[in-house]
Amino acid sequence: MSEPRVSSAGRAVSRRSMLTGAAVTAVSPLMVGALPPSEAHAKESSDDKEPSRGRTRQVTIYVEKISDQLVGYGLAPGKATVPGPVLEMSEGETLQIELVNTTDKTVSIHSHGVDYDVHSDGTDVNDSVTPPGGRRTYVWRSHERYKRKDGTWAEGSAGYWHYHDHAMGTSHGTEGIQKGLYGALIVRRRGDVLPARQFTVVFNEMTINNRKAPDAPVFEARLGERCEFIVIGHGNSYHTFHLHAHRWVDNRTGMREGPNDASRVIDNKDLMPGDSFGFQVIAGEGVGPGAWMYHCHVQFHSDMGMVGIFLVQNEDGSVPMHAQMALDRYHGHEHHM
Amino acid sequence: MSEPRVSSAGRAVSRRSMLTGAAVTAVSPLMVGALPPSEAHAKESSDDKEPSRGRTRQVTIYVEKISDQLVGYGLAPGKATVPGPVLEMSEGETLQIELVNTTDKTVSIHSHGVDYDVHSDGTDVNDSVTPPGGRRTYVWRSHERYKRKDGTWAEGSAGYWHYHDHAMGTSHGTEGIQKGLYGALIVRRRGDVLPARQFTVVFNEMTINNRKAPDAPVFEARLGERCEFIVIGHGNSYHTFHLHAHRWVDNRTGMREGPNDASRVIDNKDLMPGDSFGFQVIAGEGVGPGAWMYHCHVQFHSDMGMVGIFLVQNEDGSVPMHAQMALDRYHGHEHHM
Amino acid sequence: MSEPRVSSAGRAVSRRSMLTGAAVTAVSPLMVGALPPSEAHAKESSDDKEPSRGRTRQVTIYVEKISDQLVGYGLAPGKATVPGPVLEMSEGETLQIELVNTTDKTVSIHSHGVDYDVHSDGTDVNDSVTPPGGRRTYVWRSHERYKRKDGTWAEGSAGYWHYHDHAMGTSHGTEGIQKGLYGALIVRRRGDVLPARQFTVVFNEMTINNRKAPDAPVFEARLGERCEFIVIGHGNSYHTFHLHAHRWVDNRTGMREGPNDASRVIDNKDLMPGDSFGFQVIAGEGVGPGAWMYHCHVQFHSDMGMVGIFLVQNEDGSVPMHAQMALDRYHGHEHHM
Repeated sequence: MSEPRVSSAGRAVSRRSMLTGAAVTAVSPLMVGALPPSEAHAKESSDDKEPSRGRTRQVTIYVEKISDQLVGYGLAPGKATVPGPVLEMSEGETLQIELVNTTDKTVSIHSHGVDYDVHSDGTDVNDSVTPPGGRRTYVWRSHERYKRKDGTWAEGSAGYWHYHDHAMGTSHGTEGIQKGLYGALIVRRRGDVLPARQFTVVFNEMTINNRKAPDAPVFEARLGERCEFIVIGHGNSYHTFHLHAHRWVDNRTGMREGPNDASRVIDNKDLMPGDSFGFQVIAGEGVGPGAWMYHCHVQFHSDMGMVGIFLVQNEDGSVPMHAQMALDRYHGHEHHM
Repeated sequence: MSEPRVSSAGRAVSRRSMLTGAAVTAVSPLMVGALPPSEAHAKESSDDKEPSRGRTRQVTIYVEKISDQLVGYGLAPGKATVPGPVLEMSEGETLQIELVNTTDKTVSIHSHGVDYDVHSDGTDVNDSVTPPGGRRTYVWRSHERYKRKDGTWAEGSAGYWHYHDHAMGTSHGTEGIQKGLYGALIVRRRGDVLPARQFTVVFNEMTINNRKAPDAPVFEARLGERCEFIVIGHGNSYHTFHLHAHRWVDNRTGMREGPNDASRVIDNKDLMPGDSFGFQVIAGEGVGPGAWMYHCHVQFHSDMGMVGIFLVQNEDGSVPMHAQMALDRYHGHEHHM
Repeated sequence: MSEPRVSSAGRAVSRRSMLTGAAVTAVSPLMVGALPPSEAHAKESSDDKEPSRGRTRQVTIYVEKISDQLVGYGLAPGKATVPGPVLEMSEGETLQIELVNTTDKTVSIHSHGVDYDVHSDGTDVNDSVTPPGGRRTYVWRSHERYKRKDGTWAEGSAGYWHYHDHAMGTSHGTEGIQKGLYGALIVRRRGDVLPARQFTVVFNEMTINNRKAPDAPVFEARLGERCEFIVIGHGNSYHTFHLHAHRWVDNRTGMREGPNDASRVIDNKDLMPGDSFGFQVIAGEGVGPGAWMYHCHVQFHSDMGMVGIFLVQNEDGSVPMHAQMALDRYHGHEHHM
């Protein structure tokens, strides 16, 4: 590695998330940003003009029944997944989503973190849901940080956000969310470091991405690869997300931001309904390859199957013997009640 | 807007919170502070002398039964509300509270964040409760940041704090809190930006301010007004506070503090018993007027009525048609079990 | 007080925690660090070389049955305690733990925050548990912050971490943790301020350190002493940790880190399974001596006995009359159901 890839204004807004099963159309090729992180940050601090609005992009998202238990969002007909595709924006960009509801129930798409008017709220209160068989356009805008006329700062939209149904079953989308209508939304700041791999982890009731051990997601990466986790909470329970042998910084990016960053380094974080956070780790850094567990640290939840594997392969992509044996033991996982 | 109003040493300690029903006596007129936030912050960093104690103010607080289900704190007889009045202090000030217990049960007032000796602890363990029909003086002090003799910093008292009963029903005030004996306490730092509107939101068991949809609080503001939310958790349950279409920074003020502030921008935050946080948003900034929901993001909690409305009116105070229709739909809210 | 004691490379990795009953062998005498905190921090910011590995130290830890309800870790035979000993490392150091399992069940030791390979994971998935009557070596490494070749920062290992069983009862150690197989692990950064007293507080199910009021821990310190709390969550429930009359900063050290630290000051923090945090307070600073409660702020949890006392004595070690009376009332604590 030399310079890391960083986000620029031309950054593609969505990418293929290879391991979560989330097929995201790459709208434009990934671009290596022009500014390394440190310069980008320095530049931000002297920025005090009105935010410039970036380009607008269109995407069509299909709501589809996958099985009696699952409903998903997808970027093409027949391609719905749980979680839905990872959506990405650069600060300043606008995303126009045409939601196509192929189910026989009312649904919507409601986002966290970005700007939308009442017509894109995705709620019945604001009359912005999508009826069975219907279509509706939702517009999500984002903005860079700017200084208000009164001298205070309006923070930019960058963050590890998420989107979800707000209509199926109840006016809060309780059935839609329970069945899988959720996904990650990332808004990048100019200069943000880009990952090689992306993993979406949703603790939803007693499942991870609506799956349980021994069938919970196995996220794969090679030793040394930069991996981004987007972690989301849904449902009715409280959880804590723990990752073995890897840590992150408890701030916006999950990475240390300069010498004055007093944030905690953590490897266990509370994850409650509606929460989201993200971070990047270097796979196996300082600890080597292996089958590393991630799980809910609430004891009964992990015992009941809220456990998955972050599989760090050798640099050449081969799987060490000890990791293969660990995977085999994991797949023989028994639920303890 | 040009310069924002900021806090100074002469800042009034309590204000009328117009929308929460909390009648707070304006002890002195609001003052526009002398220092804009940036200079004030710069100044703080070079402060290394002992903290100066500010003025002392007196206030009488009445504990009153409002109904069989409600007990409240109030600043005058017959004026008790749930939540109680928003109390404000400037760092360095002292507040002397004479608590008048008009009920037939033992009560107290216990604060978070400020300095008090054992006689103002508000607990039976420290023999500082107020018997039925009795009166007791509680003294809360605050301090500016200062450098200790050993070179470390003692952080100032500024924060979004709260106060509550610690005596009624059990030695932890479980009955008093359940019935509404709670309120917001704000300690301002010199230079802190002052809001135009204040809203206290308390998630207490399955209620908001002991109310449920469709009767939960509707907080009103005009487009562009600076609104301060003080958010408090009580009772026995876990919650998450989510506000639609508005975000804040997860730090002391809820606003970005300079170019090195690596804090997250969020719109959903864990809210558990005893927690409090606060933030300011510009009503409708970047999203326009509307009836914006705020709610607990735990699905069953929102379905059961933990939902209120942040009503952003037009700049002239009129209510857009879509917002009026949304309010009407909200008031027809049905609880889902 | 003049200069505070600070951590240096020669810092002892474990100390005797006098009040938790945790007997930790002092491997080497405490050293007063060469750098005051501010200089140390300034120095860190220019550090961009590979981390240097520090010395390696060995320790033997015994897993022992204490009673039918308790199992503990200890540093010598017959000395197991709940919580286990406070283990300390300086960033860069390695700790080699020989775990001696004197029980008739499979156990392990799994750590948060530090670097370990799969053979020291302490899990059955990674075949790194210790059978009944067996011994196994676990190696925990730590590192200073360093700049990666790609220009990003790898944060150092410093933090208030913890260790626990991951094997007894279930593959997540549910029985081991429930019975007391847990303890605090601190990794110090060069320049970190050292305390005079240390207290480990573990909220584990409905107990504090597997005890309940009126038998929960009473932590003692003299007025003005620097006290370090390491606070850990375990089990299946959600909790919030509240300390009366003392506050801390919600960052890595619990203390303000320079003029740009925008972190909140708090006195109540969510504490869920697997979480840990730490902070230092000056006993009785600004509030005087007394019997100050710390407790879970979930009402039913405190009512059921999740309450202990932070006893701040006079400077000469005597106990004020009001504090003795408060202790007596505390020890007569009745559980409310």
